Amino acid sequence: MNTALLNADKTFTLESKDAQPLEEGQVRLDVAWCGICGTDLHIYRGHMDKRLNFPEVIGHEASATVAEVGPGVTEYAVGDAVVVRPLDACGECPACERGFGHVCNNLNFIGIDSSGAFQQSWNVPAKLLHRLPEGMNLELAAFVEPLAVACHDVRMAGLKADEFSVVLGGGPIGLLIAMAARAVGARVAISELSESRLELAQKLGFDTINAGSDDVEAAVIEKSGADGADVVFEVSGAAPPIRQMTKLARVRGRVVVVAIVPEPTPVDLFQVFWKELQIIGTRVYEPEDYDRAIELLASGEVDPSTLVTGRFGLSQIGEAFQSLDTDSQHMKILVNCQD
Amino acid sequence: MNTALLNADKTFTLESKDAQPLEEGQVRLDVAWCGICGTDLHIYRGHMDKRLNFPEVIGHEASATVAEVGPGVTEYAVGDAVVVRPLDACGECPACERGFGHVCNNLNFIGIDSSGAFQQSWNVPAKLLHRLPEGMNLELAAFVEPLAVACHDVRMAGLKADEFSVVLGGGPIGLLIAMAARAVGARVAISELSESRLELAQKLGFDTINAGSDDVEAAVIEKSGADGADVVFEVSGAAPPIRQMTKLARVRGRVVVVAIVPEPTPVDLFQVFWKELQIIGTRVYEPEDYDRAIELLASGEVDPSTLVTGRFGLSQIGEAFQSLDTDSQHMKILVNCQD
Repeated sequence: MNTALLNADKTFTLESKDAQPLEEGQVRLDVAWCGICGTDLHIYRGHMDKRLNFPEVIGHEASATVAEVGPGVTEYAVGDAVVVRPLDACGECPACERGFGHVCNNLNFIGIDSSGAFQQSWNVPAKLLHRLPEGMNLELAAFVEPLAVACHDVRMAGLKADEFSVVLGGGPIGLLIAMAARAVGARVAISELSESRLELAQKLGFDTINAGSDDVEAAVIEKSGADGADVVFEVSGAAPPIRQMTKLARVRGRVVVVAIVPEPTPVDLFQVFWKELQIIGTRVYEPEDYDRAIELLASGEVDPSTLVTGRFGLSQIGEAFQSLDTDSQHMKILVNCQD
Repeated sequence: MNTALLNADKTFTLESKDAQPLEEGQVRLDVAWCGICGTDLHIYRGHMDKRLNFPEVIGHEASATVAEVGPGVTEYAVGDAVVVRPLDACGECPACERGFGHVCNNLNFIGIDSSGAFQQSWNVPAKLLHRLPEGMNLELAAFVEPLAVACHDVRMAGLKADEFSVVLGGGPIGLLIAMAARAVGARVAISELSESRLELAQKLGFDTINAGSDDVEAAVIEKSGADGADVVFEVSGAAPPIRQMTKLARVRGRVVVVAIVPEPTPVDLFQVFWKELQIIGTRVYEPEDYDRAIELLASGEVDPSTLVTGRFGLSQIGEAFQSLDTDSQHMKILVNCQD
């Protein structure tokens, strides 16, 4: 039983799958750890059925070791520790032609649009690998993918040392953005409704705003020491923070839309005009964001280990998803794909 | 009768006012022409009563000749042709400290927050003047202010030669933005509902989209020759174009919010995320936008004379406003303040 196939009914089928022959440019990986992403939970809950081809192997936050090298691959050798950047771009669409393959019009998001990491042995294109530094903890390396999201958000925001940023939403991505923001030397406050998430944010050393009981706008102005946040990260996707986000930014401030907001939602555009704000959309990551995430984790500048609220073997993957689905106290669950 | 005072009831009182002594740094202007702005019409209609101190002299799109130079003014001499950049910043607020005095927190917008140009003789701070080139037509120079708005929008968009832009709304500002966009070498299409405005846009040589009968999204994609507009200028302030604006932009495209949208309005943030768009708020202009507008008008690169749909003397200013208020065919009415 080396492969976990997700069915459309919130169940997994475990099966033993023979290794597939390697194609040109591929490597075979022994998957080490793979985190369960919010997107994986969406898939599990049936919110993305149109995009999935069930039964499917999902999972895209993987660390691994190279087990076999296919034809034409010269940059990697058996035993190399790696992570997979799961974005396979077509190379030909207008987005790719403009150099933005990470938002390719025909993107193959590995683990969603094609088979992912919840399997012991996995064939992937070598061009999507990033090498890990010698001796790096592979459990920690499962955070490279979500931390790369955060690094992309911070980079797209142009956040600089000593600027003040506020993160609206203290879930896993919100906390990783806060960590990446702190790593560039920015001041950070996290605004969140959940008491347990506020506690965790404080434990991680962050200034917090209780969105349920505090006057968020007044708190942001006060903490900014000026006329508002240099950068606002909207990670919650909820209507009230979206309506408020442009109020929290200073003159010429930046508001980064990280959350996926499926329906048109009211935005206070008067504030955008009045203060000449920029609203910046960000999605996934580019190769340099992966490099930055690896660097931050390897150096210990970012330590997300406190976010791990569960570890499961691949054989217990159904239990892992059920736990994440039903217990809102969870932050990040990691799956050991060799177990 | 050298001064037109607007009352709160859509009437003007004409009176004869003695020249006031010049303060340090001021000059006295003989106002030549002053355009009636959409904002002036808002004021006339009573939408900005909280900000105005009636009866008040409004008007902020003025060209003029220096009639007298006050103490401490060395850069200007009697007879100089000038325009007034009507933004008097406090110099001390966070916006000013950041170098964005044009959106000063305590901005004195001359002609709204203090007395403006609808008078024959007008005292203004010399620091707000821009000199006009020798021999420049003063009627044309009344377009410097609204064209500076357009130049600011185009500059803030980072619009480049050969890029494709779409302007949503073909009123005076929309047409001036289209002209400023064409002047940087960009391709432009104007989307508009009104048949008469579409006709004028075509007469000015612009590609048009009939927002009432055409499929705007399909038209923009097709005209872009790729995956959408590089830049979308939202000038209409209406809910349907606002909902649509992010759909019209290409991957990593820019959407410029020019219109004043008083209430929170639904925006398709999914598109912002999916295509990594930037929404850019723009307000008024900075000094360099005034310089650029003067240059474009003086060189003839932008010729807005076709936009003039009425000319009135100062003594007929009530008639001028009534005409603009009731006849939607008007684009720009100019007032001759020496007449």
